[in-house]
Amino acid sequence: METKVEKLKINFKTLEEFKKFKEYGLQELSMLEDLEANIIDNDSESPFYGIYFGDKLVARMSLYQIDAKFDRYFFPPQNYVEIWKLEVLPDYQGKGYGTQLVKFAKSMNLPIKTNPRMQSRTFWEKMEFTSVDYEMERDRGENPLVWYPEGVEAQHND
Amino acid sequence: METKVEKLKINFKTLEEFKKFKEYGLQELSMLEDLEANIIDNDSESPFYGIYFGDKLVARMSLYQIDAKFDRYFFPPQNYVEIWKLEVLPDYQGKGYGTQLVKFAKSMNLPIKTNPRMQSRTFWEKMEFTSVDYEMERDRGENPLVWYPEGVEAQHND
Repeated sequence: METKVEKLKINFKTLEEFKKFKEYGLQELSMLEDLEANIIDNDSESPFYGIYFGDKLVARMSLYQIDAKFDRYFFPPQNYVEIWKLEVLPDYQGKGYGTQLVKFAKSMNLPIKTNPRMQSRTFWEKMEFTSVDYEMERDRGENPLVWYPEGVEAQHND
Repeated sequence: METKVEKLKINFKTLEEFKKFKEYGLQELSMLEDLEANIIDNDSESPFYGIYFGDKLVARMSLYQIDAKFDRYFFPPQNYVEIWKLEVLPDYQGKGYGTQLVKFAKSMNLPIKTNPRMQSRTFWEKMEFTSVDYEMERDRGENPLVWYPEGVEAQHND
């Protein structure tokens, strides 16, 4: 079955599907509360993109664009994309859905930063992401990985 | 056995002990490389604090002070402490070591922010940490919890 990456709308069905993902957290709880309290409308925009298999959400990620003035990772400093909560449901892993999400993010042609769990390193290396030089003040407890489009390199802050 | 919280020095023994903790990551790898390359000296200062049981490191956390000018969590804006990688080895859990580390952090009498895994919420609530109001631009994919000393309250950025 052909699958495509879709921008997800915030509604009760989507938020129910989100509960199946391990990295369900404060962000999702906050969206749920806002929807219940009518602070946001049904089918509001969300930063999440996902892949449906039939009508089941099987993979998702959050994409967020960071403004160049906050860029501490890339040179020259520029707008870049952060990926977080990229996750494929266990029964659907190994079928290329993670790769499909990352390719979608790369198609924006901006540098990408992510902060994955250490266990997923092999996947990210296959996606051509590389480690940054760790800087405590910037990276704290994170394990940042970045992807450089052509002409972009690491920013050094010493 | 009475235990105490100690500031950890960076040396090969400490870095070997760190490998037993799940949240071993880029920060630790970077310290190891710096030590091997003589960029830092044996027994250099580290942001880690830990508890030894006999001569075995059984619990640890990283404490990092954030300057008031970067404070987006507390009102009035002020210096605060970030805890990350607070972790007790499985065989030593449920004995109060986590609590001992948090108490140590609180004794600095500054507000505290942490970004724990969702599964550890109960522990942090017992420690009197509370959820922030999620703000995507600030909190991204994090699940921040904070502790307010007397006279400090949440910062609102809208």
